[in-house]
Amino acid sequence: MPTPPGEFELIARYFRRPAPHAVLGIGDDCALLACEPGLQWAVSTDMLVEGRHFLAGAEPRQLGHKALAVNLSDLAAMGAQPRAFTLALALPTADPQWLQAFSSGMLALADASGIELVGGDTTRGPLNLCLTVLGLVPPELALRRDAARAGDALWVSGTPGDARLALGHLRGEWQLSPAQAQVVLPRLHAPQPRVGLGLALRGVAHAAIDISDGLLGDLGHVLRASGVGAVVDADSIPASPALAAVATARRRACQLAGGDDYELLFTAPAHRHAKILQAAERARVPVARIGSIVAEPGLQLRDSAGRSIAEHYPSFDHFAAS
Amino acid sequence: MPTPPGEFELIARYFRRPAPHAVLGIGDDCALLACEPGLQWAVSTDMLVEGRHFLAGAEPRQLGHKALAVNLSDLAAMGAQPRAFTLALALPTADPQWLQAFSSGMLALADASGIELVGGDTTRGPLNLCLTVLGLVPPELALRRDAARAGDALWVSGTPGDARLALGHLRGEWQLSPAQAQVVLPRLHAPQPRVGLGLALRGVAHAAIDISDGLLGDLGHVLRASGVGAVVDADSIPASPALAAVATARRRACQLAGGDDYELLFTAPAHRHAKILQAAERARVPVARIGSIVAEPGLQLRDSAGRSIAEHYPSFDHFAAS
Repeated sequence: MPTPPGEFELIARYFRRPAPHAVLGIGDDCALLACEPGLQWAVSTDMLVEGRHFLAGAEPRQLGHKALAVNLSDLAAMGAQPRAFTLALALPTADPQWLQAFSSGMLALADASGIELVGGDTTRGPLNLCLTVLGLVPPELALRRDAARAGDALWVSGTPGDARLALGHLRGEWQLSPAQAQVVLPRLHAPQPRVGLGLALRGVAHAAIDISDGLLGDLGHVLRASGVGAVVDADSIPASPALAAVATARRRACQLAGGDDYELLFTAPAHRHAKILQAAERARVPVARIGSIVAEPGLQLRDSAGRSIAEHYPSFDHFAAS
Repeated sequence: MPTPPGEFELIARYFRRPAPHAVLGIGDDCALLACEPGLQWAVSTDMLVEGRHFLAGAEPRQLGHKALAVNLSDLAAMGAQPRAFTLALALPTADPQWLQAFSSGMLALADASGIELVGGDTTRGPLNLCLTVLGLVPPELALRRDAARAGDALWVSGTPGDARLALGHLRGEWQLSPAQAQVVLPRLHAPQPRVGLGLALRGVAHAAIDISDGLLGDLGHVLRASGVGAVVDADSIPASPALAAVATARRRACQLAGGDDYELLFTAPAHRHAKILQAAERARVPVARIGSIVAEPGLQLRDSAGRSIAEHYPSFDHFAAS
């Protein structure tokens, strides 16, 4: 067997690349990033663990894409322009084929998103991916969770619930047709962070959050931070054809409590309806109005006839007693 | 048994604190950090894995300290002022006692170092700690690895090798007296990052690196990045009393190839000898000149009589075939 490559050689071979926007990229104790006058840095960290955030044996190219995508989604939800990221990687073994596929999946999305890998760490250990992303946003234009106001309309991008539909198929909870699976599996394995939409919503939307733990759970974070409530019309949430084909109760459960969607949930003054549609058009991402922000705290969930929906949809919690 | 606390409650209880320097701290999709005119951000990430970077069952308060210390050490080696950090934490179980001790160890060092926790992520998984630290440094004053010049003196802070001496004691490779162990074990478990020294060396030193993987291995990074060589007088490296008491071969191995020291190794023009000593005095950290940077690439290791030392001291490599 050939000698496995050493740690530093690995980094150089698969991950080292020019970082033209950075003052200094990979290879020193720290990367150096210039400050840009009039902008703030948005910073977010996400850790992905095998068996929890992705299945054991996940295809490495998709995994590389997804690990960066979920972090870019946090920048999108803040209205920040992606600029730089670091990658810390614990690997049980240093498998060149795996690393090649993983890094190419990650770096392809990095290139498409204008974000540069500027530093990182690799070590042996149970598979774990930890990324920190940095982006730029003008002060006062960041889309904060605490900015929802009574009277705002509530919007969502894309068709949330597809990732949960795909996960249930993989887990054997239900069975999708090959054609349906082909459409929804990429929504789970290779989500598209809504970076362009986040940028287009600067100065138009009030609050925003990305849907990682389920629509209602993430909406709850916005409501608590903003001190407001919401009325949600569950049946106005856009469904993909695959999701529209399943029974109502399952569809709603996927849409309202399914995680891993990485769509944006946002609020905006009701009178900006046309501006929101223009922003979505510019970003080429479909959006839909699904409810309203109200002064009274709490969440009122309604069906298309305006009747209250009583089901309880727990949000995803990594440490919840279940 | 009481219900284990949920993920978000955990974060709030043990880690959420005011971050007065940040525009926005924990609790949104991203933290927001203002740019300061005339300064650059230094960014570094380190991942610590149980069984590799720390022993299983490590005392959580020390572990919290050490996880931040090794990251602060990277800022120190860049001459950066610590400002903000994120913490991603994978835990097998959410044990309140463990979390209380871990967070108090980490946050005590954060307070002492002027760095604020601004964001993070917690998940269930094999114990893994990933920190990203951010600090500020004026352009042109960062202590880069590629800045060593022929004619520079080579310096080191403190007494490298103690952490390796402590590790060998714990591993049963050798036996220290209780008094010796009491002195060197904290050097392994609770290293003191040389932040003040890094700041004091701005504009005085040329290149710097922190000793995490062993003095010679880390020196090698500086030499390669700078395109120079070095002559090191192995016997001029300061030894703690515990290390001075062991046989020469073991002492040298600990000093030259032991990792986990988090001392600073740096170069400076020889004529700045007095300025370096003044900087060390201001930072209250002892430093010693241990060699010289030369134009010819490669490393020449000498004893106190000027004789060449032929031993091979491999640097620490997490993926090296051993």
